[in-house]
Amino acid sequence: MIPMIPIFHITPPDEALRPIIQDKIDNLNKPKGSLGRLETLAMQICLVQQTLSPSLLHPCHLLLGGDHGIEREGVSVSPREVTWQQMINFTKGGGGVNMFCRQHGFHLRIVDVGVDYDLSQVSGILHRKIAFGTRNFLHEPAMSEEEYIRAIIVGIDLADATHAEGSNILCIGEMGIANTSPSSIWMHLFCHIPLDECIGAGAGLSVEGVTHKRDILHQALEHFHEIHPQPSVHDMIRYFGGFEMVTAIGAMLRAAELKMLVMVDGFIMTACALAACQICPEVQPYMIFGHCGDESGHRRMLDAMGAEPLLSLGMRLGEGTGALCAFPIMDSAVRMMNEMNNFDNANITKYF
Amino acid sequence: MIPMIPIFHITPPDEALRPIIQDKIDNLNKPKGSLGRLETLAMQICLVQQTLSPSLLHPCHLLLGGDHGIEREGVSVSPREVTWQQMINFTKGGGGVNMFCRQHGFHLRIVDVGVDYDLSQVSGILHRKIAFGTRNFLHEPAMSEEEYIRAIIVGIDLADATHAEGSNILCIGEMGIANTSPSSIWMHLFCHIPLDECIGAGAGLSVEGVTHKRDILHQALEHFHEIHPQPSVHDMIRYFGGFEMVTAIGAMLRAAELKMLVMVDGFIMTACALAACQICPEVQPYMIFGHCGDESGHRRMLDAMGAEPLLSLGMRLGEGTGALCAFPIMDSAVRMMNEMNNFDNANITKYF
Repeated sequence: MIPMIPIFHITPPDEALRPIIQDKIDNLNKPKGSLGRLETLAMQICLVQQTLSPSLLHPCHLLLGGDHGIEREGVSVSPREVTWQQMINFTKGGGGVNMFCRQHGFHLRIVDVGVDYDLSQVSGILHRKIAFGTRNFLHEPAMSEEEYIRAIIVGIDLADATHAEGSNILCIGEMGIANTSPSSIWMHLFCHIPLDECIGAGAGLSVEGVTHKRDILHQALEHFHEIHPQPSVHDMIRYFGGFEMVTAIGAMLRAAELKMLVMVDGFIMTACALAACQICPEVQPYMIFGHCGDESGHRRMLDAMGAEPLLSLGMRLGEGTGALCAFPIMDSAVRMMNEMNNFDNANITKYF
Repeated sequence: MIPMIPIFHITPPDEALRPIIQDKIDNLNKPKGSLGRLETLAMQICLVQQTLSPSLLHPCHLLLGGDHGIEREGVSVSPREVTWQQMINFTKGGGGVNMFCRQHGFHLRIVDVGVDYDLSQVSGILHRKIAFGTRNFLHEPAMSEEEYIRAIIVGIDLADATHAEGSNILCIGEMGIANTSPSSIWMHLFCHIPLDECIGAGAGLSVEGVTHKRDILHQALEHFHEIHPQPSVHDMIRYFGGFEMVTAIGAMLRAAELKMLVMVDGFIMTACALAACQICPEVQPYMIFGHCGDESGHRRMLDAMGAEPLLSLGMRLGEGTGALCAFPIMDSAVRMMNEMNNFDNANITKYF
């Protein structure tokens, strides 16, 4: 029996509290609106948590690893063994994701959902492997329906486990050589932006490399449309997606069901957020977009979603590093709500 | 005897170390350049500190308070008593600056250099008052030569005291109702941008309010040019500046002499940084621009200086809050240099 695709029941945050939250923000001892983006961010967090005194509890970062069949076509500057090498490096604490998790107090969960290497003996990794990498979507779907559903369920389970530990904020990052390729295709399919404008240099392709990547992705897309003349959202995700990406989608959707905040990282994680919104648009109010990166198209994808990222630091490392770097801004917004005096208790003439 | 204007001897960071620092950055286990702005920031910090293993020690924030004679002309939405009320509020921990100092581990020094109120009995404030506010520069210079020099020397002393405590990073913020007015005039005088394009709404002026502010500042400037047909940089600073602003300039210049990093906040502090660069251009490599704010002209002033701010969150509170919010980015850059594995010790195929 093939399992069913899980259905998500996400309730958007109740807007009734908005004027009360706004009133509290406006009565803090500062000129109205003068904390800018911190104020809109505080509003979002308060609405998600349905409170005037928000909190960021036990923040957790999922680092999901998986390999991609499409890597065989030379669409990435890095070879696939970098995926498993980096996964091991993360267990030793020396990766980009490690230092930012330490800096901001995130519990880091490193999860193998589809790395093309036997990591089962490596401690410090959660073993949820669905397969040793996806298949090559130039020729066939990246994953079967069953694999697709299993990847979503792994994401659900990870969000559940995090929530059970008392966390109310989930950040997700990825490690998967070649995963800008499926991200670009999703951006094209879901935002209706011409494919070429969705394709960038990834981790550092040359001009010739980008041209080659475009050729390959165009071919893959053509083939996909032949097989699926009227594809569903799930068809589009399953045909191109990596295991780490589909797991991320499942985790995002479940986290929103649980009313957790979801921190979204760079190009690949934004593509996953976009896909999650296609499955269930009510997920988006739970998402905080941490960073607009350098990958061509990321800004356009964010614009298409109406998403306003907190940082823009030209990063393109992935792993969730961009989102993690934005965490202190969230913390600042929360502190504003909890620690700042208001005009009454500070005995200050209310500005105009 | 009138004291002399202090001369600053700032040595720009030795560039000889640059290729060695770049080599270390490029050998960290990430695609080359993929940490974007963190990498250029790490380079700047390493050059200032002349090391491959930088550190941010005992960060200190100076909150400088002063009132402005020009406030009498109705150029600000807030009345001048807000300056002293906020100074007292800061001693109680309830201001914007307090919460961000707590968040990022900054030692906060609240200093009265020119508030128009007797704060001498308030504990938690350093008393370095030069006068009870500046004079009204619509009619006369904001301060005398002696007051100007005293304000610079207070800044020097504050930087010295901070350095003596082992700090290598100084952040400066201000509290001074009406201090966008002198900032706009400095921007005009030092960047040669038409005055109208340098004037914004401050903490929340209406359209009519901005028009009035423009009229007043144009008149003041006209009068200044009559008195000083060929003004020196010091004339321009002294005639319009607030005590908190001139003290900030002195502190910035002395901190750079001491090879400390200087964090620059929003519109007013950027105007002070600009003025400091006019006195001694070698100060700029020591400056890190934290935040591009909402005040009209801030982006243009930063561009004119070739400065690239770390954040852009639409804040316009002052107090140093924008710069403080950028501190974790600096911390991330430093951690990158000290904590991230390189390709050799991580056993990872080098991305090229």
